Amino acid sequence: MLEGKFEQASLLKKVIESIKDSVKLCNFNCSAEQGITVQAIDDSRVLLIALKMDAGCFQEYRCDRDLVLGLDLESLGKILRQGNNDDYLTVIAEDTPDKLLVVFEDKKKDRISEFELKLMDIDSDVLSIDDMDNDCSITLPSAEFAKIARDMKTLSESLQILVTKDSVKFAAEGTIGNGSVILKPHTDMDEPDESIRIDLNQPVNLTFGAKYLNDIVKATALSPTVTIKLTDKAPALFEYRLPSGYLRYYLAPKFEDEE
Amino acid sequence: MLEGKFEQASLLKKVIESIKDSVKLCNFNCSAEQGITVQAIDDSRVLLIALKMDAGCFQEYRCDRDLVLGLDLESLGKILRQGNNDDYLTVIAEDTPDKLLVVFEDKKKDRISEFELKLMDIDSDVLSIDDMDNDCSITLPSAEFAKIARDMKTLSESLQILVTKDSVKFAAEGTIGNGSVILKPHTDMDEPDESIRIDLNQPVNLTFGAKYLNDIVKATALSPTVTIKLTDKAPALFEYRLPSGYLRYYLAPKFEDEE
Amino acid sequence: MLEGKFEQASLLKKVIESIKDSVKLCNFNCSAEQGITVQAIDDSRVLLIALKMDAGCFQEYRCDRDLVLGLDLESLGKILRQGNNDDYLTVIAEDTPDKLLVVFEDKKKDRISEFELKLMDIDSDVLSIDDMDNDCSITLPSAEFAKIARDMKTLSESLQILVTKDSVKFAAEGTIGNGSVILKPHTDMDEPDESIRIDLNQPVNLTFGAKYLNDIVKATALSPTVTIKLTDKAPALFEYRLPSGYLRYYLAPKFEDEE
Repeated sequence: MLEGKFEQASLLKKVIESIKDSVKLCNFNCSAEQGITVQAIDDSRVLLIALKMDAGCFQEYRCDRDLVLGLDLESLGKILRQGNNDDYLTVIAEDTPDKLLVVFEDKKKDRISEFELKLMDIDSDVLSIDDMDNDCSITLPSAEFAKIARDMKTLSESLQILVTKDSVKFAAEGTIGNGSVILKPHTDMDEPDESIRIDLNQPVNLTFGAKYLNDIVKATALSPTVTIKLTDKAPALFEYRLPSGYLRYYLAPKFEDEE
Repeated sequence: MLEGKFEQASLLKKVIESIKDSVKLCNFNCSAEQGITVQAIDDSRVLLIALKMDAGCFQEYRCDRDLVLGLDLESLGKILRQGNNDDYLTVIAEDTPDKLLVVFEDKKKDRISEFELKLMDIDSDVLSIDDMDNDCSITLPSAEFAKIARDMKTLSESLQILVTKDSVKFAAEGTIGNGSVILKPHTDMDEPDESIRIDLNQPVNLTFGAKYLNDIVKATALSPTVTIKLTDKAPALFEYRLPSGYLRYYLAPKFEDEE
Repeated sequence: MLEGKFEQASLLKKVIESIKDSVKLCNFNCSAEQGITVQAIDDSRVLLIALKMDAGCFQEYRCDRDLVLGLDLESLGKILRQGNNDDYLTVIAEDTPDKLLVVFEDKKKDRISEFELKLMDIDSDVLSIDDMDNDCSITLPSAEFAKIARDMKTLSESLQILVTKDSVKFAAEGTIGNGSVILKPHTDMDEPDESIRIDLNQPVNLTFGAKYLNDIVKATALSPTVTIKLTDKAPALFEYRLPSGYLRYYLAPKFEDEE
């Protein structure tokens, strides 16, 4: 039996809002040690999404044996919208489940909402993703990155990211003109999440599809900061930290002959 | 002559917003004793709407002889949107009127807006509705009822309401799964309108069209609470209290062979 | 070389938002003495727009020789939306420019955004507009005028403006009925911009196309007040004051045989 109780319904609501436009169907893997993990490739087969909600994300967490829950994220999203952000939220499944039970409890305890969501059999291969050394790592406010990704998409379908030790530059070339945003590393003592940090082994210059960056920034509500790890000719990693765990996106850069 | 002056334009604005999507044309009956009353059946002939604005709804009210004002509610709504919520609002009609005069006055008195709305001849029969004994009566926050009606509609076209002395349960069965919300009666001393009260003669289990419940909850802004009176195999009554008077909706339950 | 630096990006953003729906392409004329001036006729050839941003609109302003910048306002609007309202905004052009450089600087100085906008050759004749004596001049809160223009448009395609020494009346005759708003002159000592002032040489009664008035009120954010100058059988002037300069609209009244 799986029983995971969130102190705030808002966490799972935000996670599903972050990924449901990219992935329609996916498996939630539940285990005692790993908590709930998801690995999914977006419907256009370009963006790899890796979610890890450790037991620390839950107020109470119990998982007697490993389970795979095949979920339609749009349906789950509809159900999650019915709870209030600060309700308790409990997800429950039997050991050989054909449904997921979703329970919201108002903290005043006068309202309980229960939903049963039918489960599905979903084919999926889990890729092993190696941690690798990166050419550079940038941490910046997630809202700042979201604004850049959204704004630049109005100029061009591609966004170039150039990192040196002194700055990170986001640049787009479009039909109406060109644009760039330059951020400099700095430490904000009063609001640490407003800081911008660059760790550099060597400079990088990579170009990404603006559409996919706009899918990624749907996770902005999950964390005040985002960390971007870049390596020449390798998929980039965009990581949003959860209270315990993460939501990661892997996106391959565009190569010159594509552009 | 009819002359009714509202202290706040917002009251009539909210009343018309509550019913104009259900009923396009209807008669406003004006009399000295009864104030303004409306009885109308929605355009799909399922929902009966009964409005009563007693003289107590008005700062000043005068009606020399009984009048019937045939109104196009969409046009009236357009005109009402032109006043500010806290303007004085006066409605004026001659004894044999062909138009309704609508006057807004800013409370600082530097702005007066006047509108003439053409009246129409509208056929309508007034049904006599008997007060009857009910199997049960539930009073709950109107916003809570509105959220349940809207949320459950995303799951199913039907909403079941089950009442026992200990709880009221709203349940829906849909293709993506089932859902229910259970409310328990309780008294909130600090915010009485947040209380939930159940008066029960006998338990009921009735099913309603979710579409019509969603029409009804358009009246949510009119009152912080709604009272629902249910009787087996009889139309349900949903009542929103006005400062003096009410807006009532009568809705027949679905029967098994319809479902 | 042109280099104009705004203390707040919001000023130019609001100017472009005010006119870009009326005029797609227009020339910005830049000179040392006059600052930046624009004269344009809206795409339906009815509304004349005259913008004057004096050097006083800028924190720093330099213009070595007269320049004409042919701009696509929709593209410029896209770029301006990428800056924050309280960023510094600098517009830069070479002496024989083929592009306009738009630079936003965050006031904390950790973010610089640069955009190059391609310039265009745009044919335009500059009309000389004589200052003339008017029959009357009305100054009122710009938000009040905007609400009247928008509300009345739901009743009719024409809006009549009647001014006497005691009041200004906006009137519309529509198929669902007629409406009017009457404003009286008054002085608000606490909030001077809320005052209404009428200077009258002789009463006027003019009718304008509601569509064009709705184009004009897009400038509402630029100034808390608007001044309307009316003369019988002559184009009306609607003026929004800038910190130094103005945005003016000239609109010919409708004549009886058009109505």
